[in-house]
Amino acid sequence: MIQQTEILFPPFKRGYHLVTDAILKQLPALPDKGMMSVFIKHTSAGLTINENFDSTVRKDFEAFFNRLIPDGSPYFIHDSEGDDDMPAHLKASLIGHSVSIPITNHQLNLGTWQGIYFCEFRNNGGSRKLVVTIYS
Amino acid sequence: MIQQTEILFPPFKRGYHLVTDAILKQLPALPDKGMMSVFIKHTSAGLTINENFDSTVRKDFEAFFNRLIPDGSPYFIHDSEGDDDMPAHLKASLIGHSVSIPITNHQLNLGTWQGIYFCEFRNNGGSRKLVVTIYS
Amino acid sequence: MIQQTEILFPPFKRGYHLVTDAILKQLPALPDKGMMSVFIKHTSAGLTINENFDSTVRKDFEAFFNRLIPDGSPYFIHDSEGDDDMPAHLKASLIGHSVSIPITNHQLNLGTWQGIYFCEFRNNGGSRKLVVTIYS
Repeated sequence: MIQQTEILFPPFKRGYHLVTDAILKQLPALPDKGMMSVFIKHTSAGLTINENFDSTVRKDFEAFFNRLIPDGSPYFIHDSEGDDDMPAHLKASLIGHSVSIPITNHQLNLGTWQGIYFCEFRNNGGSRKLVVTIYS
Repeated sequence: MIQQTEILFPPFKRGYHLVTDAILKQLPALPDKGMMSVFIKHTSAGLTINENFDSTVRKDFEAFFNRLIPDGSPYFIHDSEGDDDMPAHLKASLIGHSVSIPITNHQLNLGTWQGIYFCEFRNNGGSRKLVVTIYS
Repeated sequence: MIQQTEILFPPFKRGYHLVTDAILKQLPALPDKGMMSVFIKHTSAGLTINENFDSTVRKDFEAFFNRLIPDGSPYFIHDSEGDDDMPAHLKASLIGHSVSIPITNHQLNLGTWQGIYFCEFRNNGGSRKLVVTIYS
């Protein structure tokens, strides 16, 4: 059985944001056993799973990825939307466009310290669309 | 319901190639609602989702990943197949071996600017096998 | 049809370990056709697919990722568990928290040279929990 829900996120600040609860509260009751896929319909934002407790982890994510792919790197050809344009595309493919999480006993079967990160790579990314697919 | 299709890609040049249509035209009609997984059966090529319009994005991908993991880096032990051998393995795990995309109303539910990239990391990668699994 | 199995891995050394067989031997017979998802319930270890033959590939993975994200980088704020704390979180999101592999003819439909890597990013990571979900 397949259930699908489209979610519209309001604009988030550039950075890494914990959104597990924001996603769950838009979904129907989870099945006894299955999988949840969350897919983001954009190429300059991403989704990953990481530490859900200490917000400094998310600050260090922003610092690391900005050092790895500096805004306005002079060798980028694709810069029509600004210095954060091409870095956002690269970060999106490094972090990934989706997460897949098992569902067990009507709950996400995450580890104690795991949460879903929504990763906004643009300075002004605007609203973002996600598609959640639950199969059971 | 599960449908599977094996696809054989001819040799592609080293680099990033937009293959959404090349994949879709080998598939049967998509179901009303479900998921499509595309898996690549190689460890020196990858699959990701990114910008489908401006080809300079794909050129910048090649430039970025070559700077991140230079061919022939002297500390690599595994170089039996040449200077591009180990970098290709590392890029494959950074970019990923599969993409999962929701299907809605008999179509891939991609964002306006999203397409599937086939990423050839070897200078002479040869033909490449993919497995598409559709569940609905 | 959905089958789920939780697997507990004993402590592994920091590094990259081939675990395809260790996973398969804990599973029931695979279905004729489907998908297998393996999910790791931790934020400082990961799963990927790469070369299953030459162990120097796995040594080069360790060398590359340690250069990319050096232990104890001075700009990290989150270091409460030591110099390998924040690097482990970043590596986990670069490598990924899950792998999805097609099942065909009652076997994993991997390429000849593909295997599942369990990636331990901590110096003393301890036991690790995985959830395998098979849908068919």
